[in-house]
Amino acid sequence: MSLQHPATADLVLPAVLHALSDPHRLQIVQALATSETPLRCGTMGLSITKSTATHHFRVLRDAGVIHQVEDGTARLNSLRREDLDARFPGLLDAVLGAVPAVPA
Amino acid sequence: MSLQHPATADLVLPAVLHALSDPHRLQIVQALATSETPLRCGTMGLSITKSTATHHFRVLRDAGVIHQVEDGTARLNSLRREDLDARFPGLLDAVLGAVPAVPA
Repeated sequence: MSLQHPATADLVLPAVLHALSDPHRLQIVQALATSETPLRCGTMGLSITKSTATHHFRVLRDAGVIHQVEDGTARLNSLRREDLDARFPGLLDAVLGAVPAVPA
Repeated sequence: MSLQHPATADLVLPAVLHALSDPHRLQIVQALATSETPLRCGTMGLSITKSTATHHFRVLRDAGVIHQVEDGTARLNSLRREDLDARFPGLLDAVLGAVPAVPA
């Protein structure tokens, strides 16, 4: 079963802002924004349980902030930067610029 | 009793993004952004009950997005644009630029 993702034209501002309104989800977005390659869920230094992390990834995916593909038993995540920039110019950069530094 | 407002330095990104993640609250922010003077709660064309509106204004105030002052039995609202711009440069403009047009 392939994962569902909203089309670019269907991204809505309140849902995107809600997806970005959590410190852990911001940490995920920041990790993806600074990576040149897609990242597995377990590689972003999140100090939360796997099930909680899965919830956060799902909120981000449902809002159209990230793209996920199955990779064996794992999922590879990437930021939908072009889609977000097309729909909400400047928003992602403003958010990323304002994210507090996270522990390495 | 005067209303509580967070100091500029205490504004935090997740709370601000959460406050902005609701269509009615975005409508309030847009109305305040396009007004040259503070606005009373009842003048923004919200199609919600007074108690629901009061909740939304409180979320915005607690996050530091708006400033409220008592004016007799009403409250006057203004956008904390300078504070938001100082803490999160470009964020408010990006959000306002992305807000869908609301009915006049």
